[in-house]
Amino acid sequence: MERVEMQPTYDVGIIGAGQLARMMAQAAIPLGLRLRLFAQSAIDGAALIWPDVEIGSPDDPDAVAAFASECGIVTFDHELVPSTSLERLMQNNTTLRPGPSTLAFAQDKRWQRERFADLGFPVPPFGVVKSVQDVATFAIDWGWPLALKTSYGGYDGRGVWRIENPNDVTTLLASLSSNTRDMIVERWIPIEREIAVMVARSPSGQIATYPVVQTLQVDGICREIVVPAALSVAQSNRAIDLACEIAKAIDLTGVMAVEFFVAGDDVLINEIATRPHNSGHYTIEGCTTSQFEQHLRAVMDWPLGATDLRFACVVTVNLLGGSNAREPRAGLPKALAIAGVHVHLYGKGARPGRKLGHVTAVGTDLNDVRERAWRAAEILTGEPAEVAK
Amino acid sequence: MERVEMQPTYDVGIIGAGQLARMMAQAAIPLGLRLRLFAQSAIDGAALIWPDVEIGSPDDPDAVAAFASECGIVTFDHELVPSTSLERLMQNNTTLRPGPSTLAFAQDKRWQRERFADLGFPVPPFGVVKSVQDVATFAIDWGWPLALKTSYGGYDGRGVWRIENPNDVTTLLASLSSNTRDMIVERWIPIEREIAVMVARSPSGQIATYPVVQTLQVDGICREIVVPAALSVAQSNRAIDLACEIAKAIDLTGVMAVEFFVAGDDVLINEIATRPHNSGHYTIEGCTTSQFEQHLRAVMDWPLGATDLRFACVVTVNLLGGSNAREPRAGLPKALAIAGVHVHLYGKGARPGRKLGHVTAVGTDLNDVRERAWRAAEILTGEPAEVAK
Repeated sequence: MERVEMQPTYDVGIIGAGQLARMMAQAAIPLGLRLRLFAQSAIDGAALIWPDVEIGSPDDPDAVAAFASECGIVTFDHELVPSTSLERLMQNNTTLRPGPSTLAFAQDKRWQRERFADLGFPVPPFGVVKSVQDVATFAIDWGWPLALKTSYGGYDGRGVWRIENPNDVTTLLASLSSNTRDMIVERWIPIEREIAVMVARSPSGQIATYPVVQTLQVDGICREIVVPAALSVAQSNRAIDLACEIAKAIDLTGVMAVEFFVAGDDVLINEIATRPHNSGHYTIEGCTTSQFEQHLRAVMDWPLGATDLRFACVVTVNLLGGSNAREPRAGLPKALAIAGVHVHLYGKGARPGRKLGHVTAVGTDLNDVRERAWRAAEILTGEPAEVAK
Repeated sequence: MERVEMQPTYDVGIIGAGQLARMMAQAAIPLGLRLRLFAQSAIDGAALIWPDVEIGSPDDPDAVAAFASECGIVTFDHELVPSTSLERLMQNNTTLRPGPSTLAFAQDKRWQRERFADLGFPVPPFGVVKSVQDVATFAIDWGWPLALKTSYGGYDGRGVWRIENPNDVTTLLASLSSNTRDMIVERWIPIEREIAVMVARSPSGQIATYPVVQTLQVDGICREIVVPAALSVAQSNRAIDLACEIAKAIDLTGVMAVEFFVAGDDVLINEIATRPHNSGHYTIEGCTTSQFEQHLRAVMDWPLGATDLRFACVVTVNLLGGSNAREPRAGLPKALAIAGVHVHLYGKGARPGRKLGHVTAVGTDLNDVRERAWRAAEILTGEPAEVAK
């Protein structure tokens, strides 16, 4: 019998249906791409606005494989897909972009640090933690305080602890369940400034980088993204060059955010995310091609789009749920009255600390642009914008 | 029993699910608006990309009323909704934006011409046609050729005929079914240039106008939109002022396109569309607020957004299905390689003459921007871009 090559029903399947998938879906509409989403729940942000949604857990290899079987390419809204599911997809010859070996760099911090150090990339001094004694030994070289980080599953400040002394280590390790005890210890970097670079790379090797952004984190959660970052040309070029080198070294397909600590004239790699990222939301209005369209172009192996900044200044402020549990929708008309402010709501219910949306302001004067972005955020969340003051 | 005020399930219901609804849905995502679409078919452009879709005919008052009952506001993707359905919605106290009396101006060309003439708006010389004799009488005053137009249902060049002599009238009237015989006759305007203005108006009376565009029609179908239009300041202001006056006179809610013939120093009203319109697709990339977001803001009675042009030149070219019935998707990677070109596909199957999508190019030099837009269109449709040459 002749083998018939079937066209897949969907061009791209996305594992995860949060705000990143929601904004990818928005970018897929004009391109005419047929997307399919693998959601945890029918009320995930992207599941609310897209017709082709399967509900399931990324921990279930059968469900993930059934979902992927109708998709030409599979990509990701988050990294929290266990190796059992990824291995099943590999057995089925699913086209994963990025692939599992690339994902591992974002999933496993210990692996990333060890490989990056081998490759000569600048990472903070680190050590592997098997016991309290390992931390004490590391502290002899690097002093206190220290950062303890889980290798797997940390995000938005979760999975990272500032450790002041040996007692803190004992208390922390005792409090963690055994499966989160694969940890690394790092020198606590006195943060002068945090920056991030978005880079896109296609399977055929085309690379495009976006302007360097400055990020403001509070309690490990990103609150504000400012473009352009206040950096020397040398620092900026260094960050962009490193992002490109990492993209090649890990065989990236799609977009990746690389977050750096600025340390004097050099930069140190903090984290990477091999997918669209909060630090790139500003590209929707700020750049010719948004990170979401770029990710789709890259995973389809289509030409990458221009990444030039369209405005002198672009500022994004995240809308975090406040203690008031206020729905940002209530303040929308008032926020939309502010000139040059674009509001993005994710369709999620309000919970304290949850990312409910973001606003992006554009303009020519940085103080003015920041003020408008924070004013809109304050209206939408009902929380005072202390950070900006 | 106490009456409980129920929140509607959907913020906005859209009657029709073509490309205008598709682009409205895209604009609704960041605003967190809950949309519901009333589609003729499950493969309508917007029905392919939105989860909340009812299938039905706008000619069926029961189906339209059932659809509208769960929507806070009902708006339109097209004007082809008969009065029987609109009257049922009025009986049910549905909030229609625009309302039926506004829609009538777009639905009924005879009514529009008569009312606009009464209001002193500049319309071409016209007459009502009941018989061949009416046309002959009109021709005594205005000469041949003449334009014959159906009052209802014409679009994209359909429902408009150029008439050279009395024999043409007899032949045409005999060929039409009786329900399309409510016609008007107009002087054939020697077209120097066609322009259009998009205006938005909210129920609370806020008005915003967009830059004047120049449109290029071939066989009555819009092929290209160029911004800025080559006009004197006086002509441009006249068109913008008239668009605002018409918006107020017809009590517009939402956006409206007013198409004009340029005739010496004055402008003559050609057509109006009380909804987002092809001549406004350029606003997606070209202006701070797209016509689609603006329409949603207006019907929600939210503040209107800024309408400023973001680039020196913006050119949109429609992708019309060619005799080759080629799907534009095949050329997408090659078209995306052209700098500063944004592609919008509508998800429709290719048929000769059908609008399958559009491309918008932006830049600083008009010749360069036009060349890039037409080059992308040629790649996507496989049809030579003779028009631009």
